[in-house]
Amino acid sequence: MSSSEFSIIDEFFTVKSSQEFPPILGVGDDCAVLDVPSGKQLAVSTDTLVEGTHFLENSDPKLLGHKVLAVNLSDLAAMGARPVWASLAITMPNIDKDWLAAFSKGFFALAEKHSLHLIGGDTTQGPLSITITIMGLLPNHQRLTRGGAKVGDAIYVSGNIGDAGLGLLKAQSGSVDLGDEAVAAYLTPVPRVELGRKLLTLASSCIDISDGLSADLSHVLRASNVGATIQHQGIPLSDGVRQHMSEIGNQLWPYSTGDDYELCFTVPSNVSLERIDSKLAQMVTQIGVIEREEGLRIQMSDGEKVTLNKGYEHFNGK
Amino acid sequence: MSSSEFSIIDEFFTVKSSQEFPPILGVGDDCAVLDVPSGKQLAVSTDTLVEGTHFLENSDPKLLGHKVLAVNLSDLAAMGARPVWASLAITMPNIDKDWLAAFSKGFFALAEKHSLHLIGGDTTQGPLSITITIMGLLPNHQRLTRGGAKVGDAIYVSGNIGDAGLGLLKAQSGSVDLGDEAVAAYLTPVPRVELGRKLLTLASSCIDISDGLSADLSHVLRASNVGATIQHQGIPLSDGVRQHMSEIGNQLWPYSTGDDYELCFTVPSNVSLERIDSKLAQMVTQIGVIEREEGLRIQMSDGEKVTLNKGYEHFNGK
Repeated sequence: MSSSEFSIIDEFFTVKSSQEFPPILGVGDDCAVLDVPSGKQLAVSTDTLVEGTHFLENSDPKLLGHKVLAVNLSDLAAMGARPVWASLAITMPNIDKDWLAAFSKGFFALAEKHSLHLIGGDTTQGPLSITITIMGLLPNHQRLTRGGAKVGDAIYVSGNIGDAGLGLLKAQSGSVDLGDEAVAAYLTPVPRVELGRKLLTLASSCIDISDGLSADLSHVLRASNVGATIQHQGIPLSDGVRQHMSEIGNQLWPYSTGDDYELCFTVPSNVSLERIDSKLAQMVTQIGVIEREEGLRIQMSDGEKVTLNKGYEHFNGK
Repeated sequence: MSSSEFSIIDEFFTVKSSQEFPPILGVGDDCAVLDVPSGKQLAVSTDTLVEGTHFLENSDPKLLGHKVLAVNLSDLAAMGARPVWASLAITMPNIDKDWLAAFSKGFFALAEKHSLHLIGGDTTQGPLSITITIMGLLPNHQRLTRGGAKVGDAIYVSGNIGDAGLGLLKAQSGSVDLGDEAVAAYLTPVPRVELGRKLLTLASSCIDISDGLSADLSHVLRASNVGATIQHQGIPLSDGVRQHMSEIGNQLWPYSTGDDYELCFTVPSNVSLERIDSKLAQMVTQIGVIEREEGLRIQMSDGEKVTLNKGYEHFNGK
C-alpha cells in the first residue's frame, strides 16, 4: 500500500466502531487480523462492479457506494450469513476527493445498518471499478446452498421481479428519481439479509437474483439436479413492470432482467411459512414447484408452457 | 454470478485439492464457507493490479498469474501468516480462453507451492485488472505489524533491493528474458512466506517492500513513532543494479523503486539471528538501526547524510 493510498483509506474509510466483532487489526497494516468466534464458520463472497458494464458512466458516487455493498451483502443473504467484515478495492482514474467522500457516505450508511466493519482494501489508478470481498458468519454446519432443492419443494421469491430492470431503462434515459420505485430498485437495492438469516433453518436452497430469475433459478435447478415449473401469473410484478411488459408486448421480459437482488428459495412441501412466521410469509410469494424433469418451464396464463433458461450474461450482453 | 462466469471459473479455476484446510464449500455458490481452526486468527489482505498501472500492456498471462498472487502472498508474509485461501476477481475486455488458461497455469503453480485454495471470485467485463483477497492463518495473538519497532532495534531486508525496478526498465524495453535476474525479479517475484513465518516470534515489526524501501520503511517508522538511519553501503545490491546506479549517476535510485516484494523488518538488539537460525541470517542483511529522532536518514559512503521518505505512489507516478 503506497502512502497516498494509505491517506485515502485513512481519510475516507476509517471508522471507529463499537459494533460486535471489531477486527483485531484493521485498516492500515499489511493485513487485517480477524477472530472468527468458535462455533461459527466464515462465509466469503467477492463481487466486482465495472463502470459501463455494471453501472452507468458518471453514476452518483453516493448511490454507487450503497449499491456495490448491497450487491455483496445480497450474496451473504443468499447463504443465510450474518454480515461482519468487508474489504474494498477501488480502481479510479484519479484521486477525486469529492467522489470518494460521497462514495464512502453511501457505503458506510449501509455498512452501519448491517454492523459491518471495513477491514482494509486497496486504491489503485485505472478505469473505474470496485471489488468488495465480504465476510459473514454462519452457525457451524448451517448454510443455504444452491444444491438442496428437492422434488415437491415450493419455489418462492421475495419482493417484486423486474423492477430493477425497468429502473435500468429509466436510468439509461437519464432518470435518477429515487421516488420512482423502479429507479430506486435499480440504484438502491435492499439486500435481503434478515430474510436470508430467517430462512437458514427453513429453506432447502437459496440464491439471490442478480442475473435474472430464469438464469438464477436455473443455477439452483442444475446444482440440485431437478427441474421446475413456474406459474407465470404467480410472479410478483409491480404495476410499472406490468405496464412495460404490455407496452413492449413481451410477457417473458422480467425473467431475464438482472439486478433485483431479491432471494429465490425453495421450501419443503411440509413446511408452512405462514404458520412458522407470518411476517416472513408476507414478504415472499410462491411462484412454482420443483419437479423431477430437468429444465425450467413457465406455465403461461393462456395454458402455453415455455422453456426459459437464459438471463443476463456479463460477456454476452442481452 | 452469471452462467458464463460460472463456466469460466468451472473450466479454469476449479481444482480438487488434498491439501489442508479445504473450504467447506468452494467455488460455485453464492459464498464460499470456511472453517477457521480454533487457536488461529485470520489474516486478510486485498491487492489490485491494473493493466497499464501495475503491469505492462500485453503482459504474458502466465507470468501475470504468478505475479498477482505473489504480490498478495507477500502481504501475508509481512504479517507472518500461513497462506490458506484466496478469492480472485478478474475484469477483462472479452473472454479469451487462451489467456485464461495461461493465467490460471501461472496462478495455480504458485498457489500449489503454498498449499493455497482458490475459494471463489468473480469474472467481469471491462479493462483488464485483477483483484485478489488472500486469507492466511496466524496463531492467536501472534502477528508482525508495522507498529512494533523500538529504538535500538536492528533493521534488516531480505534479498536484494532494486532488482525489480531495473527489471521494469528492461521489460519496458521489451525484454522478457527470465534468465536475467532483474527481469525475473520484476516478472516473477518470490514472496517471502517462509521467512515471514519464521520471523513471527523474532521480529518486532515487518513490512513488505512493494512501493520502495524508503516509502515502506517510512510506514514502519511512522506506525512505530520512531526514526532510523540506514547505512547506504549496507544495502544489498546486485551487480546489475550497481552498474545502473553508476550509469545514471544516482546512488539513491534503489530506495524509491518498487515491486521488490522483499521483507523489511526490525529485530530487538539483544536477538542474534545468526545464533537462532544461521540459514535465515544468510537470507537477510542488516541495513540500519532504529533511532528516537523521527524521519529516515541515509548515511552515504562519503559521510553525507540525506533524508528520504518518498517511494512509488500509485497516483503521482515517479
